[in-house]
Amino acid sequence: MIQSNTPFSTAEYNRRLALTRKAISDAGLDAIFVTDPSNQAWLTGYDGWSFYVHQGVLVTLDADPIWWGRYMDMMGGRRTCWMSHDHIVSYGDHFVQSTEFHPMQDLAQLFKSRGLETAKIGVEMENYYYSAKAHAVLTAELPNARFFDATAIVNWQRLVKSNEEIGFIRKAARITDKVVKTAIERAEPGVRKNDLVADLFHAGITGVDDDWGDYPAIVPLTPSGLDATAAHLTWNGAPMNTGEATFFELSGCYRRYHAPLSRTVFLGTPTDDMRRAEEAQLEGIEAGLNAARAGNLTADIANAFMGVLKRYGIERSGRMGYPIGLSYPPDWGERTASIRSEDTTVLQAGMTFHFMPALWMDSWGLETTETILIRENGAAEPLCNVERQLFVKP
Amino acid sequence: MIQSNTPFSTAEYNRRLALTRKAISDAGLDAIFVTDPSNQAWLTGYDGWSFYVHQGVLVTLDADPIWWGRYMDMMGGRRTCWMSHDHIVSYGDHFVQSTEFHPMQDLAQLFKSRGLETAKIGVEMENYYYSAKAHAVLTAELPNARFFDATAIVNWQRLVKSNEEIGFIRKAARITDKVVKTAIERAEPGVRKNDLVADLFHAGITGVDDDWGDYPAIVPLTPSGLDATAAHLTWNGAPMNTGEATFFELSGCYRRYHAPLSRTVFLGTPTDDMRRAEEAQLEGIEAGLNAARAGNLTADIANAFMGVLKRYGIERSGRMGYPIGLSYPPDWGERTASIRSEDTTVLQAGMTFHFMPALWMDSWGLETTETILIRENGAAEPLCNVERQLFVKP
Repeated sequence: MIQSNTPFSTAEYNRRLALTRKAISDAGLDAIFVTDPSNQAWLTGYDGWSFYVHQGVLVTLDADPIWWGRYMDMMGGRRTCWMSHDHIVSYGDHFVQSTEFHPMQDLAQLFKSRGLETAKIGVEMENYYYSAKAHAVLTAELPNARFFDATAIVNWQRLVKSNEEIGFIRKAARITDKVVKTAIERAEPGVRKNDLVADLFHAGITGVDDDWGDYPAIVPLTPSGLDATAAHLTWNGAPMNTGEATFFELSGCYRRYHAPLSRTVFLGTPTDDMRRAEEAQLEGIEAGLNAARAGNLTADIANAFMGVLKRYGIERSGRMGYPIGLSYPPDWGERTASIRSEDTTVLQAGMTFHFMPALWMDSWGLETTETILIRENGAAEPLCNVERQLFVKP
Repeated sequence: MIQSNTPFSTAEYNRRLALTRKAISDAGLDAIFVTDPSNQAWLTGYDGWSFYVHQGVLVTLDADPIWWGRYMDMMGGRRTCWMSHDHIVSYGDHFVQSTEFHPMQDLAQLFKSRGLETAKIGVEMENYYYSAKAHAVLTAELPNARFFDATAIVNWQRLVKSNEEIGFIRKAARITDKVVKTAIERAEPGVRKNDLVADLFHAGITGVDDDWGDYPAIVPLTPSGLDATAAHLTWNGAPMNTGEATFFELSGCYRRYHAPLSRTVFLGTPTDDMRRAEEAQLEGIEAGLNAARAGNLTADIANAFMGVLKRYGIERSGRMGYPIGLSYPPDWGERTASIRSEDTTVLQAGMTFHFMPALWMDSWGLETTETILIRENGAAEPLCNVERQLFVKP
């Protein structure tokens, strides 16, 4: 194993590979082909904005993983992956966005060259970067192989974080603190939203001391007023107005690790029902944190929160959070467990979630969220450090 | 047709829909389901960072398009799409990242409710946001429908820009000028790359006067030295060094429209071979611009550039550009025509390309690129306005 400038220790990559191999073996597979950029980085260290073309990592039970991608990105692989150069391979540029050739034709040759022509191969059927076409071409090129859905097999191995990873998330959380505090300070009537967002990017990417900021997997979500009834609108150039709530859903990013946090700012005097919702939300979060302990279930967190809301007469269903850590656009969630009533994942120390019990009402939205760490004992630890309240400014 | 705060006129959306319907009809289809977020926005105005869950637009030959997505994003659809609310529909949160349910089950019901149970339906097989699993579920749920690959059918309609669109790209280009000039000014030995990148984000998102900056579909690419031999590495916290070339591949963004530009900065004294490459590159770009005229082919641009390089004894193959305009992460290219020798797209007035004849050598990279507009007459117009040269700083 050759270390280059990978973010983690050799022992950490060995841990990840061992977990993944056990999962491959448990699933009765010979190999998996990993297209999720977060899984690729987690396994090999690969880091680059090249996931808009086909690339991936082949993991087998007995050899180092192979990173496979476009020729010009192989150079990036050599600069970021821990494997030796013969485990970083590429396809020619004529395969890129061609109607005549498809990169999966090249990948099929790689499988053949590694003796996997008749293997049982897992692929991530539900992933942004494994298209319907990619699957059709790959399976047609390898008619004697058998394909299985390996969606989230690697993602599940990422659920419990190592101490090295928790260290990264804590650094991300310090950056998040800085970004969210910038938002709260800068919000005032007349400020153009895009000017405020520019300051958020600046705060996040300058980072904190030696901990330089990386790009978060989601851009700042900062909608105001009626726009805040929708969850995922991005900014525009309109000025902030008195009488409106604005929620800020933000994350710092340290070497691809995230620690999302949301806070809401009201300019003027909030209505009584918003104040009451705030009270319910804060009490519900406390109940959720208290339920978020090793041995309990993800559902327990959701039910604890909803139990409080019910007492306040507020209805809230749906998902209230997800695991976070290493991620690439378009999502900073890990897409495994969910904090919701139907989810029965057993909580373990080292899991990290974005606990996200936002309230989107008819005419306003109230987001107060925390990135939390499940501990050996006791309630979950919120990793960020921004006062938990609705921020009211004149 | 109900206009809300969409960026374009009703006439413009009608133009787009008419082009798309003709393409659907020409392909012998009854309907297409569009998952590319850029195509969704181009057809309906939908704008939100929600493409990390399944969503899309159903286009038929005789009714307004239907935007379909997650319940919480339907609210965003109502705030951004031009269609009436009964053409903005949603699925419940229990479908989201569930192992039990899949959103395509809900979509199949929508198809049935619109009489498309036995229709000929086009889907974008090669798209980031149409997974192999989505295709498998959708086709299984609609066994009597016939599915066809409609990849890029809408993208091709986007190739020739309207005057309204060109106006947006010109605004993006003004923002690009500001961002690239910031990079050139800020680059100096000892500056941490992430601090410089923070300033680039700030410059881009504050925008120019009333033209507020949106998020570009690709983050700033700013590698130095050996990292610049790889095309797609992102920044870190290392200081810039004397003796290294850094390329900056950047774009401003105005309401999702892009105008990418690259320039290279050398700190210190460039080597003779880099100077010679610069000379070849600049002369090649002039030749390419001159070949980029209505009636010529995309291949003519590539061949004109490579012809000059050959005279200088420099080898360069592969793709040298792609159409640009409206886009969402992870790519600001339109994924249709390519500027390369094998591509025979006939150039028409109103097409806009990122002409991208970068040179990635063994130990350094030199990127000098232009966003260009094909005109009715004469050579292509570069839309940005930054001196075309290798920038040398002490």
